[in-house]
Amino acid sequence: MSGMKQVFDEVIRKVKPNMAEVQVSFELFSRIASFVKDEYGLSAKLMGSVAKDTFLTGDKDLDIFVFFPVSVSREDLERKGLEIGKAVFEKFGCRDYVVSYAEHPYTKGVIDRYEVEVVPAYSIRSTKNLRSAVDRTPFHTKYVLSNLKRNDEVRVLKKFLKGIGCYGSDLKTEGFSGYLCEILVIHYGSFLKVIEGAQDWKYQQIIDASGFYSSRSYKTVARMFKDQPLIVVDPVDKNRNVAAVLSLQKLSRFIVCARKFSVKPELKYFFPRKRRIDGLSIVRAYEDKGVRIYAVVFERPADVIEDVLYPQLRKMLLNFVGFLGRNDFVCVDSWVFGDDECGVGFKVANVNVSKYKVVCGPSVFNQVKHQEGFIKMHKNRKVWLKDDRYVAEVERECLLIDDCVKLFFGGSKDDVKGRGVPANIADGICAGFRVLKGKQVLKVKSREFWDGVENRI
Amino acid sequence: MSGMKQVFDEVIRKVKPNMAEVQVSFELFSRIASFVKDEYGLSAKLMGSVAKDTFLTGDKDLDIFVFFPVSVSREDLERKGLEIGKAVFEKFGCRDYVVSYAEHPYTKGVIDRYEVEVVPAYSIRSTKNLRSAVDRTPFHTKYVLSNLKRNDEVRVLKKFLKGIGCYGSDLKTEGFSGYLCEILVIHYGSFLKVIEGAQDWKYQQIIDASGFYSSRSYKTVARMFKDQPLIVVDPVDKNRNVAAVLSLQKLSRFIVCARKFSVKPELKYFFPRKRRIDGLSIVRAYEDKGVRIYAVVFERPADVIEDVLYPQLRKMLLNFVGFLGRNDFVCVDSWVFGDDECGVGFKVANVNVSKYKVVCGPSVFNQVKHQEGFIKMHKNRKVWLKDDRYVAEVERECLLIDDCVKLFFGGSKDDVKGRGVPANIADGICAGFRVLKGKQVLKVKSREFWDGVENRI
Repeated sequence: MSGMKQVFDEVIRKVKPNMAEVQVSFELFSRIASFVKDEYGLSAKLMGSVAKDTFLTGDKDLDIFVFFPVSVSREDLERKGLEIGKAVFEKFGCRDYVVSYAEHPYTKGVIDRYEVEVVPAYSIRSTKNLRSAVDRTPFHTKYVLSNLKRNDEVRVLKKFLKGIGCYGSDLKTEGFSGYLCEILVIHYGSFLKVIEGAQDWKYQQIIDASGFYSSRSYKTVARMFKDQPLIVVDPVDKNRNVAAVLSLQKLSRFIVCARKFSVKPELKYFFPRKRRIDGLSIVRAYEDKGVRIYAVVFERPADVIEDVLYPQLRKMLLNFVGFLGRNDFVCVDSWVFGDDECGVGFKVANVNVSKYKVVCGPSVFNQVKHQEGFIKMHKNRKVWLKDDRYVAEVERECLLIDDCVKLFFGGSKDDVKGRGVPANIADGICAGFRVLKGKQVLKVKSREFWDGVENRI
Repeated sequence: MSGMKQVFDEVIRKVKPNMAEVQVSFELFSRIASFVKDEYGLSAKLMGSVAKDTFLTGDKDLDIFVFFPVSVSREDLERKGLEIGKAVFEKFGCRDYVVSYAEHPYTKGVIDRYEVEVVPAYSIRSTKNLRSAVDRTPFHTKYVLSNLKRNDEVRVLKKFLKGIGCYGSDLKTEGFSGYLCEILVIHYGSFLKVIEGAQDWKYQQIIDASGFYSSRSYKTVARMFKDQPLIVVDPVDKNRNVAAVLSLQKLSRFIVCARKFSVKPELKYFFPRKRRIDGLSIVRAYEDKGVRIYAVVFERPADVIEDVLYPQLRKMLLNFVGFLGRNDFVCVDSWVFGDDECGVGFKVANVNVSKYKVVCGPSVFNQVKHQEGFIKMHKNRKVWLKDDRYVAEVERECLLIDDCVKLFFGGSKDDVKGRGVPANIADGICAGFRVLKGKQVLKVKSREFWDGVENRI
């Protein structure tokens, strides 16, 4: 336990912002808030981890909400919100701000090295009157401010999750959000108790800090949040799962790291060294194992944000691996990358298959027309009975995996989309893709590709 | 329909025994019966297809039952039964008769080219007093004699089933028994109506000619005869399925042939020409398809009857194909043979596999000790998480199918039995087995092997 305390202290020493850093953040916020008040007569409030005092040193995010009375129409709010944002960025010397669209539009840009967001929202008294998702944020902030006592515990938890690659509720990471960390610490009491608690989590563990549901209704809750592996009921909205974005993979990784950390607390979980990747020896080791590494690489679509790109890449991967499987190529592992170039990586146990395969047809007990259909479809082929089922020997479309890969990614944009590749990605693929295998993958620069190759617990 | 009638008439012309043939059978029987009556004071009755007048010309089987009063003990019946059998065969000049054991011992031998069986049985009034399975036979005979009007229809059905390889309730054929044919004709009325009826049979079709069960209790009946694909309730014993031995394969074959015959009635179903098998071109055609034919051949155990040999061969095949599958060899087709040499034939789509494979372990949500066990077991291997499951890269035991085959059939008798090979077969294998592949299988003489290679509907 003393090792645990030492690690905790060392982490907090490194991640806790000092007073000067806090002061600078608040100063910048109050200058912006004054400007908004003076020019537009609207009150602006600080949200996010700076407001809740759970940010890590060096984090330079300022989430500023500008509140409108509910009498203002949605259109006016959006128009005025953008106007105020633009005025703020111009006033404070930021030229390359952008208009971003979550559920409604807002502006963001960099001021004094801070990533500033100016978000218009309605001033409401209760979450019952929510008009959009952003309206919930002030309630989150209020909840954390009045319930969180041990802010440093949140900082350490966040740093732990960052270190193991599980922090961030963006759709690339599919990990833990800051708010989720805060709720976990409020619920369990400390970083260490979260670590201990996580070790016993079941699939679809329900954490209901505010006690909205009785344990008898847990089955209903599990159904409400179907396929979401961890359910943390939002204390300000009992119909929302704060961990909705968390993937099974990242949750599992956290559970495993929590267990390993308990047994042997080490700083490396918080401050992992960036591994040097020796591509050539990795590729050689796999060739020795009879497993071949492949990469299908194409240009990263320029106008697609990560929250769209990664889900689309994953959807493509799912369909692609299914396609390989249906063609009897055994995919040992597969992953996507989108950080530099864009594409999928995969490892296969076989690169060729027999010319013929056996397909299974209807039973003699099925409708006769289905049986006749099967026989007709395989007219010039060998068809026989295996117990009660018709089977046929069919020549394969692809004998080599390279042909199979080209078949999946090739053709017109409509062809590619027809195989389950989302539109944005299909564009990129149709502009040209490369299939790299074995040592050829050494040409891939993407770090995410190589992290996928090295895939570790 | 006229084609149908022509075919029927032609078949009956060829298979119906003439009066002289019938007379000779009955004469031999009455000579034997008189001998038994004179010497032992017991009455002997004729059973089987001769007694029921449903035998095909050339069938030379005489099943003679010798009846004992129920006051005789089981031991005395068995002893006396064998004594009478021996006396009969000695009296009628048959020296190489054998003592055979079904449920109880009986003698059989050849007299005047007839296969004669002398079976001791109890003289009982009702099937409620059954003492052994043979006691049911006289009731079967009585039932058929009083219910069957159209004996020729049975002859044609039997010949049809013989022609398509589905006749015989021995455990090699797993087909239709003579009694089953008789019940079907009694139930449906004619050969053609059986053919028509069979086309609509469902899985576990229930034929309850005597109406023992109401249609409401069919679910119970189906459960009673679990895994038996056709259920024909014995009119003399409602707890017995006359089609118990019939396999799914042979039932399916009959259904398909019945459909094809209805569409185009042809004599070839009854009198199939024995196909000439051109082994070399078959093997070449498969090599062209990238599919390799294998045979594992060993001596046929001399002291094992077919009713034991074939079920054991099939059990071995099931375990062997499972073993191939677990080692990632794709078995396209497989069968057994025991007519000359003995062994298994199979076709595979791949003859080698990658050096490594990926095995799936427990979930992070399973008991921790199982997870730790998996990690420990794969200590020096790459282990990672695929969603919530641990997976590991494992070196394979067999990279080549030949090694895999040798691994299954090799080792001590206990090793072989441990892999699910029944004792009698294991003996044969341990005495030596050969693995033949590709053109090497041309050395296999077994007709059953080649029928399996050619496997047709």
